[in-house]
Amino acid sequence: MQAARGAMANFRLALIQLHVSAVKSDNLQRACGLIREASAKGAKVVALPECFNSPYGTQYFKEYAEKIPGESTQKLSAVAKECSIYLIGGSLFLVTASVEDPFQKRMVESCIIRVLSLVLMVLYWQSTGRTAYCKVGLGICYDIRFAELAQIYGQKGCQLLIYPGAFNMTTGPAHWELLQRGRAVDNQVYVATVSPARDEKASYVAWGHSTVVNPWGEVIAKAGAEETVIYTDIDLKKLAEIRQQIPILSQKRYDLYGIEMKK
Amino acid sequence: MQAARGAMANFRLALIQLHVSAVKSDNLQRACGLIREASAKGAKVVALPECFNSPYGTQYFKEYAEKIPGESTQKLSAVAKECSIYLIGGSLFLVTASVEDPFQKRMVESCIIRVLSLVLMVLYWQSTGRTAYCKVGLGICYDIRFAELAQIYGQKGCQLLIYPGAFNMTTGPAHWELLQRGRAVDNQVYVATVSPARDEKASYVAWGHSTVVNPWGEVIAKAGAEETVIYTDIDLKKLAEIRQQIPILSQKRYDLYGIEMKK
Repeated sequence: MQAARGAMANFRLALIQLHVSAVKSDNLQRACGLIREASAKGAKVVALPECFNSPYGTQYFKEYAEKIPGESTQKLSAVAKECSIYLIGGSLFLVTASVEDPFQKRMVESCIIRVLSLVLMVLYWQSTGRTAYCKVGLGICYDIRFAELAQIYGQKGCQLLIYPGAFNMTTGPAHWELLQRGRAVDNQVYVATVSPARDEKASYVAWGHSTVVNPWGEVIAKAGAEETVIYTDIDLKKLAEIRQQIPILSQKRYDLYGIEMKK
Repeated sequence: MQAARGAMANFRLALIQLHVSAVKSDNLQRACGLIREASAKGAKVVALPECFNSPYGTQYFKEYAEKIPGESTQKLSAVAKECSIYLIGGSLFLVTASVEDPFQKRMVESCIIRVLSLVLMVLYWQSTGRTAYCKVGLGICYDIRFAELAQIYGQKGCQLLIYPGAFNMTTGPAHWELLQRGRAVDNQVYVATVSPARDEKASYVAWGHSTVVNPWGEVIAKAGAEETVIYTDIDLKKLAEIRQQIPILSQKRYDLYGIEMKK
């Protein structure tokens, strides 16, 4: 989203911490219901979690994977248009000629899922065509461990980073909040993470705790483990004030970092 | 410090959270006493805080500034040699032809103090000539806000970063621990910060809370606000295990980041 002339300094963000069941149609129906609820409460940007329409794991690839356009993308596109919102569709498994083969292999999050997910997310992005608020950078789950991605988004003018993700019961308590607070304070941006609700019976148990952090590094909204929608107002004026207060962004020495990076 | 063949996988680090008075000779005497105490307790790498021999502020530049060699550097060199340790001398104000003029100007931490401090710190580094444990990256205070510096150190093989620093009563509670936990987990290194003890009567009140964080992002040693020495064993085997467990360092795409950086 490019910042438009006369764009408001504030807009409401909603994160949908969906309980993901094994029934795709049910997941889609509840997701759309919660999106409408979020829109009714004033959210202009709404995000779904990683793997929102299927359980999480390689064993589910074949059964749940879709083409684009397909059932999930069409339903999400329709509800985004109906509500006039920006909808980040989390992620889903995608069927394409080039990736059917890797479906047989062990899931490597940093490879298959990530690439496919980003395809989906950008889709809704461009299909809404509504008033823009700020540039938003997107990543999936494990991406948040790479400081460089967030730095590049920051350099490109993003003021909000959104990471649909599903950390587990080990990495969740250890790193989920720390990583997003770090990305926020280092790049002086808002950072949001969107997890599926925790399901102790699932083969992969997600941590939950979808979170929004402000550019000062403070947690300003946080879900528990159960299904919920959390809201926060993104305040771009506050962001600008923080950047003035601690002017690290204008003090960066990319001339030096660049030299080092090339070695 | 280059890792030597046969270097031990563990070594003891001591951080000296010195109470800094207005009497330089007293500061030096107590610093040397605590360094000897740390050495006696097995520390092989010892670090002093930023501005360890003078109060913190531009108004103290002229009175406390020294040349190299000078009183402080000679005393620290002697005690480092006597104890056979690596001593990071924190920082002090330095008199050189080129910086006398800026002394008149408002203190800009990211400029004058930083550059001068690094001169001092490297000095002790090279003067000890003892067995090496690992590469150590150094920064001063505000440097810790720049993720890129830590990333470059990481790329160069540093496994421990040490930041003598003096955050204040606003930035201390907000960012002191967060920044070092972020640097640690993002680069999978040990990170240590060394603050002067808090002195409520000083013109600049330091936060204290010198800290060591392990490569998993956990705080493993933390001082209160008062003068103290904290110890921790740096475990390079544990560091290697964490890097294997979450292999982000080998998954970095510097080929892509470099392209972005040049834009």
